[in-house]
Amino acid sequence: MTVQGPVRYAMLGGGLDAFIGGVHRRAAALDGELTLVAGALSRDAQIARDSGAAYGLAPDRTYLSAEALIAGELGRDGDERAELISIVTPNFLHYEQARACLEAGFHVLVEKPMTMTSGEAAELESIARANGLACVVMYNYTGYPMVREARARCAAGEIGTVRKVFVEYHQGWLSAKVEAEGVPQAEWRTDPKRAGLGGALGDIGSHAENLTSFITGLEIESLSADLTSFVPGRALDDDASVLLRFAGGAKGVLTASQICAGEGNGFSIRVYGDKGGLRWRQEQPEALELLSLDEPTREIVRGGPGAGSDAAEGSRIPVGHPEGFIEAFGNIYRGAAELVRAAREARDASSMGQLTPTAVAGRRGVRFIELCVKSAEQDSEWTPWSDAD
Amino acid sequence: MTVQGPVRYAMLGGGLDAFIGGVHRRAAALDGELTLVAGALSRDAQIARDSGAAYGLAPDRTYLSAEALIAGELGRDGDERAELISIVTPNFLHYEQARACLEAGFHVLVEKPMTMTSGEAAELESIARANGLACVVMYNYTGYPMVREARARCAAGEIGTVRKVFVEYHQGWLSAKVEAEGVPQAEWRTDPKRAGLGGALGDIGSHAENLTSFITGLEIESLSADLTSFVPGRALDDDASVLLRFAGGAKGVLTASQICAGEGNGFSIRVYGDKGGLRWRQEQPEALELLSLDEPTREIVRGGPGAGSDAAEGSRIPVGHPEGFIEAFGNIYRGAAELVRAAREARDASSMGQLTPTAVAGRRGVRFIELCVKSAEQDSEWTPWSDAD
Amino acid sequence: MTVQGPVRYAMLGGGLDAFIGGVHRRAAALDGELTLVAGALSRDAQIARDSGAAYGLAPDRTYLSAEALIAGELGRDGDERAELISIVTPNFLHYEQARACLEAGFHVLVEKPMTMTSGEAAELESIARANGLACVVMYNYTGYPMVREARARCAAGEIGTVRKVFVEYHQGWLSAKVEAEGVPQAEWRTDPKRAGLGGALGDIGSHAENLTSFITGLEIESLSADLTSFVPGRALDDDASVLLRFAGGAKGVLTASQICAGEGNGFSIRVYGDKGGLRWRQEQPEALELLSLDEPTREIVRGGPGAGSDAAEGSRIPVGHPEGFIEAFGNIYRGAAELVRAAREARDASSMGQLTPTAVAGRRGVRFIELCVKSAEQDSEWTPWSDAD
Amino acid sequence: MTVQGPVRYAMLGGGLDAFIGGVHRRAAALDGELTLVAGALSRDAQIARDSGAAYGLAPDRTYLSAEALIAGELGRDGDERAELISIVTPNFLHYEQARACLEAGFHVLVEKPMTMTSGEAAELESIARANGLACVVMYNYTGYPMVREARARCAAGEIGTVRKVFVEYHQGWLSAKVEAEGVPQAEWRTDPKRAGLGGALGDIGSHAENLTSFITGLEIESLSADLTSFVPGRALDDDASVLLRFAGGAKGVLTASQICAGEGNGFSIRVYGDKGGLRWRQEQPEALELLSLDEPTREIVRGGPGAGSDAAEGSRIPVGHPEGFIEAFGNIYRGAAELVRAAREARDASSMGQLTPTAVAGRRGVRFIELCVKSAEQDSEWTPWSDAD
Repeated sequence: MTVQGPVRYAMLGGGLDAFIGGVHRRAAALDGELTLVAGALSRDAQIARDSGAAYGLAPDRTYLSAEALIAGELGRDGDERAELISIVTPNFLHYEQARACLEAGFHVLVEKPMTMTSGEAAELESIARANGLACVVMYNYTGYPMVREARARCAAGEIGTVRKVFVEYHQGWLSAKVEAEGVPQAEWRTDPKRAGLGGALGDIGSHAENLTSFITGLEIESLSADLTSFVPGRALDDDASVLLRFAGGAKGVLTASQICAGEGNGFSIRVYGDKGGLRWRQEQPEALELLSLDEPTREIVRGGPGAGSDAAEGSRIPVGHPEGFIEAFGNIYRGAAELVRAAREARDASSMGQLTPTAVAGRRGVRFIELCVKSAEQDSEWTPWSDAD
Repeated sequence: MTVQGPVRYAMLGGGLDAFIGGVHRRAAALDGELTLVAGALSRDAQIARDSGAAYGLAPDRTYLSAEALIAGELGRDGDERAELISIVTPNFLHYEQARACLEAGFHVLVEKPMTMTSGEAAELESIARANGLACVVMYNYTGYPMVREARARCAAGEIGTVRKVFVEYHQGWLSAKVEAEGVPQAEWRTDPKRAGLGGALGDIGSHAENLTSFITGLEIESLSADLTSFVPGRALDDDASVLLRFAGGAKGVLTASQICAGEGNGFSIRVYGDKGGLRWRQEQPEALELLSLDEPTREIVRGGPGAGSDAAEGSRIPVGHPEGFIEAFGNIYRGAAELVRAAREARDASSMGQLTPTAVAGRRGVRFIELCVKSAEQDSEWTPWSDAD
Repeated sequence: MTVQGPVRYAMLGGGLDAFIGGVHRRAAALDGELTLVAGALSRDAQIARDSGAAYGLAPDRTYLSAEALIAGELGRDGDERAELISIVTPNFLHYEQARACLEAGFHVLVEKPMTMTSGEAAELESIARANGLACVVMYNYTGYPMVREARARCAAGEIGTVRKVFVEYHQGWLSAKVEAEGVPQAEWRTDPKRAGLGGALGDIGSHAENLTSFITGLEIESLSADLTSFVPGRALDDDASVLLRFAGGAKGVLTASQICAGEGNGFSIRVYGDKGGLRWRQEQPEALELLSLDEPTREIVRGGPGAGSDAAEGSRIPVGHPEGFIEAFGNIYRGAAELVRAAREARDASSMGQLTPTAVAGRRGVRFIELCVKSAEQDSEWTPWSDAD
Repeated sequence: MTVQGPVRYAMLGGGLDAFIGGVHRRAAALDGELTLVAGALSRDAQIARDSGAAYGLAPDRTYLSAEALIAGELGRDGDERAELISIVTPNFLHYEQARACLEAGFHVLVEKPMTMTSGEAAELESIARANGLACVVMYNYTGYPMVREARARCAAGEIGTVRKVFVEYHQGWLSAKVEAEGVPQAEWRTDPKRAGLGGALGDIGSHAENLTSFITGLEIESLSADLTSFVPGRALDDDASVLLRFAGGAKGVLTASQICAGEGNGFSIRVYGDKGGLRWRQEQPEALELLSLDEPTREIVRGGPGAGSDAAEGSRIPVGHPEGFIEAFGNIYRGAAELVRAAREARDASSMGQLTPTAVAGRRGVRFIELCVKSAEQDSEWTPWSDAD
């Protein structure tokens, strides 16, 4: 048995005072495939040091800036140096940091949305490709085994030619003006300078766009968007309704809203083809419902009969023992690790790696936000897809 | 105890070869508040006679045309004569028949959509009002007790000011071109001459419009519609996506589709206000979920704790003993009977009568179809509501 | 088309002050296959008369006693006379009334439990058989289409040889001592003189026994029961737990309880064989889940793909348009009507008739109560099944 | 901010060829509160070494036996030495290994069932207590936040005095004789020498007993059990039905079965008191349903409104982002870590530690198995609880 050491990764952001960093660390730790070796965890030096200590980092690898981290790690031996840098800072920092990492030869993993503009995303995509580096974008919901099952079923033609997609992402946590009450998650997400063009659209609508693309493979041909800021004084949208027309004639309805009072994290997708349909809900992620014109609805569950190989690879424990959000997140980290290993071994990535969302998806997601905003500004005019203005 | 005899009703259409007529008869029979006394049940004389016999009608009240029925019943004594005429013929016949009935002094109950044009609907509304007659439109889903509970909760401000409505009506039975395979329900519904301007939009989208209005009381200010005929060779839409803007600033997304392969009768509504939300699904109609920013989600069930008086009045059996589609339908008949009784006793109708959908709703529903078609023809342009062109 | 007039039935009990009578009338009226022609609706003469008028009975067929009804109807012509007598009086009156009806040549339909003792039930069974009369027992839950589907699937061997059954019937409405607060349903049900040996056991446990037998065909070989009266001062059990051993080696757990605070009418069954299993819940009666060792769980819905002929015969409206309790109840009336018609035409009953529960099931149900009480009195000793002591 | 280093733990068993060890490692790694420093991972030396390398252990802390591990770790400095030893070997090894660890001064965490006999369990309990060491037993389901919420609600009297408990644990994976087909999980679990007295009873029934005790605090007074081996040739039970009587008058029904073909990991509990009830299902662990006689059913969700402090402490991510089995498992590890830290700081454990199942629960669980087997051998005779024979 050949035993392979874990992939070494560093983290930008994600100090003890941050939220999403903890999810990343848990997800990365889950399978023992990655090990955290360095970090520039906060712009506050004290928090950065405390966080490094808490996470078990060596003091000399607890850096105080991205630049220092890059320089410090480049100065280490290749078998010790961080291979992958995970960027969990607010949106507006992604581009600059990711570019610096990629240019220095590090693989990167970036939170979504990937950048503030699609032009920046295209640049990152191009640098990563040129340098043979992985540029993973954290579309974590594609890590759910049953999402991968849905994709496989769709690709296998089980529901026929897709006609209609309903994808929705409904939360309630921004129903009141919590950004004025010091909820840090809310603060930067509702600030155009740090979040970008989209509010709910960027934060969760981009997940909805990605999930649709991941499962169906459909390409948006044009879209018509209606964006609203329901909460008085909020600069960005907290509610988005988007009609979609796909190449080939399929259509879709995408809604993203953070003012659905009482909803938790209501992300779901339904896809209908000319033979059948499928339904998946993030809040009960272990099941995929498969509908048919001719047969009873079947419920495929992770680990159960009928679940295919992509689902199995992304699965850790038997049927009925629920895996959840962190496990799905962990599958993106496993995919990133696999891309790093494939690069160091100069081989093609396994399916776990190939299913992992990268800069292509990241750029498309940013472009989706831009085009929705453009359509909304023109009274929901149908706006054709174009990769650049 | 004052005992009151049942309301006498006649039926136009609904012979043994028809479908919806049977639902009407069952619904009307359920509570013993109405009794079928006459009918012009089919344009085929033999079917008309056989049907009359099967339904226990006297041969001399088994008529062969609407005209004959009207004349025959007018010739009878007032305590024997039909009071209410239920019109269950295809859409294109509603207007003419309802007008004749109303002009002859009969109360009417009409299937939805009420007429082919909103102008016709307005005429019926006006004749009925002028003559002091009930003109009930069969928006049967408003008969569900928990829909009435939702309306009462909304009106009581429990979810605050409404911001967003998601209403959807998704079926799969027109996924294939079944109208070419002799499915009679499919034939006339996909024929513009008999169905009107709308396909899925008219057949089920109008229910969605009505349910939204019934529960929230919101008025559409403008709409943007995208209509599609996915099945090749189909003249009318089989899929509709409509964005809504309501007076006062609320917004909505209404989808109606009959090509959602594998779906049965997936009608549901979700309404979110600034304090909470509510969810109701027709396929599990006995529960209403009430969401809140501050409290756990509560499930109000018919007959259970917390259900209010409107729900109770529309309820027949205890909690956990499921009532369904026919019972909800029956509540519209009970409401119609109550309107007839209130008219004969020259008093205001009880809440059961007041909750019953009439010509105002019917006209609005037809207008909704017209405006959606108009918007769709103009590439989904936002189209303001107006009662007439 | 041969048109057949409806079956004429009379009712004992079921006046305006009663509850279950209304369900019977609604269920019988639903399909137009039966017509109420006579009744002895209450022992209170005024209520009896008012009720008769309310139900549209002729005054001379509004009787004041069962004896008068039998005599009066026997005095009428055969084509006018009641054919079936529906007995909806409290348990302790069933035996005497049913015997009188059967001996006078009327078909009967009796609420469950059929009688106070299994000996009485055996007598009725034998008189009915000798006279060629139907003796239907209102095990209404067997009227649900998806219960019939479950039976058909089981019989077809789809889940293999049955090993284990879990059947439960849990309500909460007797959690407090409501019989002392004037709730009439509670009063007689908790009174041994009127209800018989069993409380929850008799009222709902007998439904659970019947459903198990109906779906699986298994015969109880021995049982071990633990009965409890949780509410102080209650004479009969309000909670029953029964372990079952069936002929052939299968086992079961049957629980019936009316002190499950907050539950409505939680009746469900799960059956597991060596190949698969099935699950059905009364509160969502339109679906049957079919489990398998090798395949994903399938959800068979009434009217949907895969539902068989027994389910279809018991169905009135399309998939997704919920049918409920009254409709299932109505199927027992349709079955009773079919048995009456088969008898008058001297032919075998159709499957609707054959699926209808009769005295055999009724007697077994009463015997089940007796044996549970016997076991419970002997500290839950395993008590073998025997038809008589 | 005081930063505290992670608790150092070692593992007995859990090599690359084992299953449950992986769950333990993932659960322990999840929160960064424990770090794996040593292991005797397999009796096969090659697997032990490969596993150690794969898990990142130093070669000199990759031991080949429990004895070597104990000796080796004792030889290390206190700030480096393993503090906690996690025992994930088959049941029959627990006692001997745990005793050796405890006697050497290590805290232990043992998989359930804790030992082969309750006498052994009592010994471990007593050694741990005498030495001031934690002896955690892996009743992982008590780690679910909503299970802890259920416990808190029960303790706060929200459902009143408990009357009835239904607890069930139904799986299907032993429906066929998979132990003969080389499924390693099945092999030892069906072998009395390695698994102990109970089959399904020991493997999953003991979880059911524990969950009941954890949530309700009720003590079993007597029990009546029926055990079955449905699969021919299987030495231990694969199906158990147990009636329970608790001190104070409450009753219960506990079923554990591994022949429920098609079920995954169907563990659920329902508890009813004189004011209300609660329901929890392991396969959808994020919700707790709270029933009431007077109010609508409320659904408490992890992270949502109404969830209390115990649930919050056991929670990592916001509402609607599903946590699952590994996260719950992780909470037991967090509790174990807290007990170790409390011991080293000579202070009382926080609530996370106090909620963690220890030897008292472990011993009770083994005793439960013994008494069920005894009752079953005496034809389900009611068997009083006693701590020893």
